[in-house]
Amino acid sequence: MISVVLIGSGNVSYHLANAFLKAENVNLVQVYARNIQQIDYLKAKTKITDNINELANADVYILAVSDDAISEVSSKITKKNAFVVHTSGATNIDKLKHNGRRGVFYMLQSFTKGKAINFDEVPFCLEAENEIDLKLLERLANQIGKKIYRINSQQREVLHMSAVFVNNFTNHLFKIGNDICSKNNVPFEILNPIIKETILKIEKMSPKDAQTGPARRKDEKTIKKHLSLLDENQQEIYKILTKSIQNEY
Amino acid sequence: MISVVLIGSGNVSYHLANAFLKAENVNLVQVYARNIQQIDYLKAKTKITDNINELANADVYILAVSDDAISEVSSKITKKNAFVVHTSGATNIDKLKHNGRRGVFYMLQSFTKGKAINFDEVPFCLEAENEIDLKLLERLANQIGKKIYRINSQQREVLHMSAVFVNNFTNHLFKIGNDICSKNNVPFEILNPIIKETILKIEKMSPKDAQTGPARRKDEKTIKKHLSLLDENQQEIYKILTKSIQNEY
Repeated sequence: MISVVLIGSGNVSYHLANAFLKAENVNLVQVYARNIQQIDYLKAKTKITDNINELANADVYILAVSDDAISEVSSKITKKNAFVVHTSGATNIDKLKHNGRRGVFYMLQSFTKGKAINFDEVPFCLEAENEIDLKLLERLANQIGKKIYRINSQQREVLHMSAVFVNNFTNHLFKIGNDICSKNNVPFEILNPIIKETILKIEKMSPKDAQTGPARRKDEKTIKKHLSLLDENQQEIYKILTKSIQNEY
Repeated sequence: MISVVLIGSGNVSYHLANAFLKAENVNLVQVYARNIQQIDYLKAKTKITDNINELANADVYILAVSDDAISEVSSKITKKNAFVVHTSGATNIDKLKHNGRRGVFYMLQSFTKGKAINFDEVPFCLEAENEIDLKLLERLANQIGKKIYRINSQQREVLHMSAVFVNNFTNHLFKIGNDICSKNNVPFEILNPIIKETILKIEKMSPKDAQTGPARRKDEKTIKKHLSLLDENQQEIYKILTKSIQNEY
């Protein structure tokens, strides 16, 4: 049995609390929130507190607070030799400022309150300062999930940066595609199947092999035609991505 | 019953032939290929020919040839008042050069030989020069599919250009994400769930509302950090997409 104290009242904390309460070998002994109202729904199921000096004893303290608050909140945890882990993709392990053992319990997924999470699909990216603590995090993650990775702070930063390309920037390209369609009275939904295909393809082949389109074919006539139809900002993006693709092949 | 002659031996022709042979109210009367060997597998199921002057009578002649060949092949169809349609996303209807009625039967999907197509999910983008011919194409598309759209040549060009953004460019961003991960010994598969999430989200909200990440948050510290970790080409793409996102919000 692994005992856990959860610190925070946001989306990550909400989903973790639910998952831990269901897990067989996890004892969620306490949840802390600065504003105790926000975790009132948990009071029938576990202890709740808004006093950081009254944290219960536990094997792991999971800090599910905003990135900016990690150093400050961790510095207030005074339990002797406490094992405190944060849950942030963008934060180095050394931002944990308590006196004790440190780790990271990062789930690379968007968490939205109210929207159920299938933890079996969530990649757990784990880090600790020694093998025993890392094994503890692995056992804990295994209680609620299946995809467990050892990822150090430098690798986590790389993941976070890659996610900007594959998630944030991709979404912006969808936005541009949507703009182009709306402007010309074409339903954007027509593109949904090809968007799905783009995703399914990279599960089977490398993105490099999956590349198609006028840039890859070096079809200058089509490229020129497209550029003539785009606004200045869209042109700039079209040119740079076309050039980048052409340099690959 | 709609009678169809199929012209071409590529992936589109292959999948259309299979679909038409299964359809209840379509009579695939003949398939033409320049090299008859390539459609030999069809000879037990329909007439095949390599002589363009011996095309059978049909309600529709579907030209499933490469974009560059559309004008040349169509000009050789001498059947009187034939209704010839091409299947290209990037080609204007007026590239059809026969003497007769013209149309477009464009399926916005990637076709790979051997890989089954679920035609129920394929958007059919149809164009013709008059309402009667357009209705005929709609009836034909309805025999094998479900998602039927009336899309003129200008709209089709717009769709094709949007697809470059949402498919080709998106794939290239996956390639960059993959490069960044490989270089740092991080398994790219960790990002699969967030990639899927990106897609699922835009089925429920507009890409503009779905936007997240450091660019949207105007988190200059993270942006600067990321830029310091990227190569020159990646930096250029990162900067331009970040700027474009920041201009939106």
